[in-house]
This record gives sequence, structure tokens and C-alpha cells, in this order.
Amino acid sequence: MTGVRSSTLATFLVDTRAHVEGALDRFLPAPPDCPQLLSEAMRYSLLGGGKRLRPLLVVAAADAIARRTGTRVLELALPTACAVEFIHTYSLIHDDLPAMDNDCLRRGRPTLHTVYGDGIAILAGDALQGEAFALMAREPNSDDPAVTARKVAAIRVVASAAAATGMVGGQVVDLQAAGQVPGHALALTPPSLRAMHLQKTGALIRASALGGALMAGAEPSQLDAIDRWGTEVGLAFQIVDDILDVEGDAAALGKTTGKDAAGDKPTYTSLFGLEQAKAMAAACATRAHAILVEHNLTDSWLDAIADWVIARRN
Amino acid sequence: MTGVRSSTLATFLVDTRAHVEGALDRFLPAPPDCPQLLSEAMRYSLLGGGKRLRPLLVVAAADAIARRTGTRVLELALPTACAVEFIHTYSLIHDDLPAMDNDCLRRGRPTLHTVYGDGIAILAGDALQGEAFALMAREPNSDDPAVTARKVAAIRVVASAAAATGMVGGQVVDLQAAGQVPGHALALTPPSLRAMHLQKTGALIRASALGGALMAGAEPSQLDAIDRWGTEVGLAFQIVDDILDVEGDAAALGKTTGKDAAGDKPTYTSLFGLEQAKAMAAACATRAHAILVEHNLTDSWLDAIADWVIARRN
Repeated sequence: MTGVRSSTLATFLVDTRAHVEGALDRFLPAPPDCPQLLSEAMRYSLLGGGKRLRPLLVVAAADAIARRTGTRVLELALPTACAVEFIHTYSLIHDDLPAMDNDCLRRGRPTLHTVYGDGIAILAGDALQGEAFALMAREPNSDDPAVTARKVAAIRVVASAAAATGMVGGQVVDLQAAGQVPGHALALTPPSLRAMHLQKTGALIRASALGGALMAGAEPSQLDAIDRWGTEVGLAFQIVDDILDVEGDAAALGKTTGKDAAGDKPTYTSLFGLEQAKAMAAACATRAHAILVEHNLTDSWLDAIADWVIARRN
Repeated sequence: MTGVRSSTLATFLVDTRAHVEGALDRFLPAPPDCPQLLSEAMRYSLLGGGKRLRPLLVVAAADAIARRTGTRVLELALPTACAVEFIHTYSLIHDDLPAMDNDCLRRGRPTLHTVYGDGIAILAGDALQGEAFALMAREPNSDDPAVTARKVAAIRVVASAAAATGMVGGQVVDLQAAGQVPGHALALTPPSLRAMHLQKTGALIRASALGGALMAGAEPSQLDAIDRWGTEVGLAFQIVDDILDVEGDAAALGKTTGKDAAGDKPTYTSLFGLEQAKAMAAACATRAHAILVEHNLTDSWLDAIADWVIARRN
């Protein structure tokens, strides 16, 4: 992590992912305190690959605020980075269940419930969510009142983003829009599709960037900038997700493609067409860049990460 | 709440439950921020009655530490009190799912998944867990570093108790012991039955008492006492639960009885017999009382609550 800004984005991604992978393994409870089967199930899903976008956003935002790199930023940011990945992973486990998306392939491997059954999959997801907040409250272990205040602020942001007014709320609307809740179907208009995506995917992405900035001690004006930047990147991420569901390669994505169209789910591509969806994603990136310029935050990995989110193929 | 110790336990229970019911309603997210259907589903389960044992333990432990009553203790304790009830309710919703206990009756009403389907039930549970930690981080809204430090400590205790090394871990072992995880069946010995119960039910009950004590600013020696007291009460609660599954009245309990025996689940009554199980519950109460005497905490509702846990018929 030394001198990251003199290196390339690829180096930052590789280095930070290595730190995150080590911390994910270290921060997960293990036997004998945690039952062997639950430990196996959590590790199967959590350590089964993935882009680690949300942890990268935590670390990049913390780094952007700290304007320096090294152990201190990582020590402050890694618990939150791992916590948002715990939460993201639990949401994938639950989304894949037969009662929701009924998916059997995730990150190129059989989904957790196909391996251990629905009961253990539900419980592994539940445990990952609880462990996320236990971790954020516990680490970094510090008596410094400033660090304690940052922890509470970060927990508040991440928990709100994960729950009823964020990720889970968006997933409820998504289930309704897909006609999967008898008697409670919803027809989405373009504004309500945007609102649903801002909750379902955008909220946790935004909270990842905000959580990193909070842990690094951001000022209110910086938090506002990171908040708006994270909102644009979150929306861009979901639009690109919809594009990849149409154009993407199942092998590269490690999950089933064409599911949205097959399930008659409203998406950016179904509502706006492929070309307009691509233009909308690019517009998010342009607005995100402008926010960084305005707040003198271009001297960071945030710009390059936003571009990577748009250009990704998986 | 004025002069509670000069009144009866019944008055304390009625008054505190009224405060808790009001706070549960107030602290739950509502439309338009939260989708209407999710709000309905969370409220259906959360506001559908229940003993509110865990919130009562939070308030009683906070009151015992504060050695006084009134608004300040309630203001500090109610968010944690509601958070543990959010968590308890989410665990009931998920436990009742067909993939776990497959129960259709809870608190005298149809279980959530029978009303809204499994997908919404999973999501309502997920949202309640996330909201619990959002609430504990948010309330009471205070800049006082002492309150902030108590919040982080309480979140850590409650989240750990709820997750892999606590409630969810115990539920995994319970599923395995009931033979519901093909290829991962477990035979429980008396010590491992005790360990499973300490995790599954005991951990959150203990954390409720500890969380209340922490929010009231308990000293380390008091925390140790409340910790040990909560462990005894949690174990007693589960032993009585097993007894009521054999002896209880389904109408009073509001849930199906005889399920454990029918499911061939190991319980205190199946392993030790009814009479010895009753003696074990009484022994927990005796040890719990001795802890309060030792730490000069008998001038509180804790003793009477422990007796109520043992004597309850539902």
C-alpha cells in the first residue's frame, strides 16, 4: 500500500484485495466458538471469489480522505471493508434462495443452498449480517473517543443502507415488480425503477464509500461529496449490471445471464433500451467525476474506480 | 416509571411494556422511506404481542445499575430494548420458515410466511436485524462521548450474541441435532445440549441484560455480575421452554406444543425427565439470586423477573 498513487489502479486493486481477503478470513468467527458447519457455510460463500467492489470502495474513500496511505488507513478501514462484504455476501445467499431468485450458480460455483440446504443458507446469511456489526463495533480495538465516534457513525450508515429503507427495501420492491408476491404486484415506472435500484444496490455501495470516509475522519463537506459520488457510482453499477445481463458472458460473470428478461423483470435495458442505458451509465460517471473535481478529491483512486465500474465485464 | 420499586412487579411489567410497545412502533421505519409491504410485514410480526422478556431485561438491568428510575434510564435503555426485540422477532420469523421449523402458528396468529410468502418473510427478518443495529447506533441521539462509547459496547455485545457464536450458531446446531441437515446430523450429549441452549436462547437473553447495564454505565464488576445473572436466567428460560413444550397449553402459549417430542429433538425433558428439568430450572434461579446478593443488586426488579421466568405458563 506504500505510494499507491504512483502506481496503477491494477496494483491498488491487487494489493487492496489481498489485504481484504486476509482480513475476511481473520475476522470471521471459527470453531470452537462457531459451529463447524456454520463456519464452513459462511466461508464457502464469503471466500468464494468476487470483485470485492464494496471493500475496495471503503478503502479507496478512506485513502482519498486521509490523503496518504499505509497501515493506519488500512487498520481503520479494513473492518468496515470486511463488514460491507459480509453484508453483500449475506444478501447474495438470501437472494439466490428458491423463495427469491432461485439461482443455482454464483461466482462460478453452486449456490450455498444447493450445497447445504435452504435452512443452513438462511442461517449463514443471518450470521454474516450479525457478524458485520459485531466486527464494526469491535475493530479497530481502540479507546480513542474519536475512533469510537467514527465507528458509531459508520455502523449507522451501513446498517441503514442494509435494511428496510435501503438494500432489503429495494429487494422487496424488486420481488413485487417481478410478480413474485401474490396480491402485491407492482408496476415500475422509470422513476420508481431508479428509486428501487438506488435502494437495492446503490445504498450499500454509497454506504461503503461513506463508511470509509467516516472511518478516515472526513469533514462534513467531504462526507457530502463522497455521499453524492457514491450515489452516482451505485446507480452506474446497477445500470451496468442490467446491461451485462443482456450482453454479458455467463462464464465471465459466474452467474446466470438473461434471467431478468426471462423473468420479465423491469430493468434499465428493458425500459430504456441498450444504447440509452449505456449513455445513462456514462452520465453517472461524468457527474461522479465532476463531484471529485469540485471537492479537490481527484488525487485518489475514486475516479479510476468509477471508470472501472462502468467498463467492467463481470 | 416513578418509584417503581415501591410498586409491584406487575406494575413494572405493565408500565415498561407500554413504553416498549410505543417505542417499537416509533423506531420502526415507515413509508415512504420504507416500502409499504415491508413495513406491514415487519409490523405484523413485531407488534403481534409477545412477552417482551428481552426488552424488560434491558430496562430492568439498566434500572438496577442506575439505582433510580425515570426518563433518563428509559431514554438510554429503550433503543437497546427495542433492538433486541427486533432481533428476537427476526429469529422467530426465520425459525418458523418451512426450511427450518415449518411452523404455522406464532403468538396465536398465522406465521408471517403463511401470510406473505417465504420471500417476504426472509426479507422482513433481514430488515429487522439491520434496523436493530441502525437503531442502536442512532438512538439516543447524543454527542456525549460516554454515551457513544456505551453504544459501541452494547452493539458489540448484542451483535455477537445474535450471530455465529451466539443465537444463529445455536440454531445451526439445533437443526443438525433435529436431523434436518442431510449429511451433517449431530447427536447431543447433556453438555452439548446445554452449550446449544446457551447459544440459541441464552446468548440474546444474557446480552439483553448486559446491554441494559452497559447503556446505564455499569462498572466492570457490575457487568460481570449481570453477565453471570443473565446466563443463569437464559438457561432457566430455555429449560422452562422445554418443560412447557410438554406440559404447556397451546392456547396460552400461542404456538404449537409437543413439537420437540414429535420431532425427536433432544430437550431438557427428553434428556433428564420432567422432574429433574424442573429442579435444574429452580437451581438456575437460586444461583441467579445469589449473584444479585453478592453484588448488592437485590434492590431491583431482577430477582422478581428471574422468578417470573421460572413460573411463567407461556
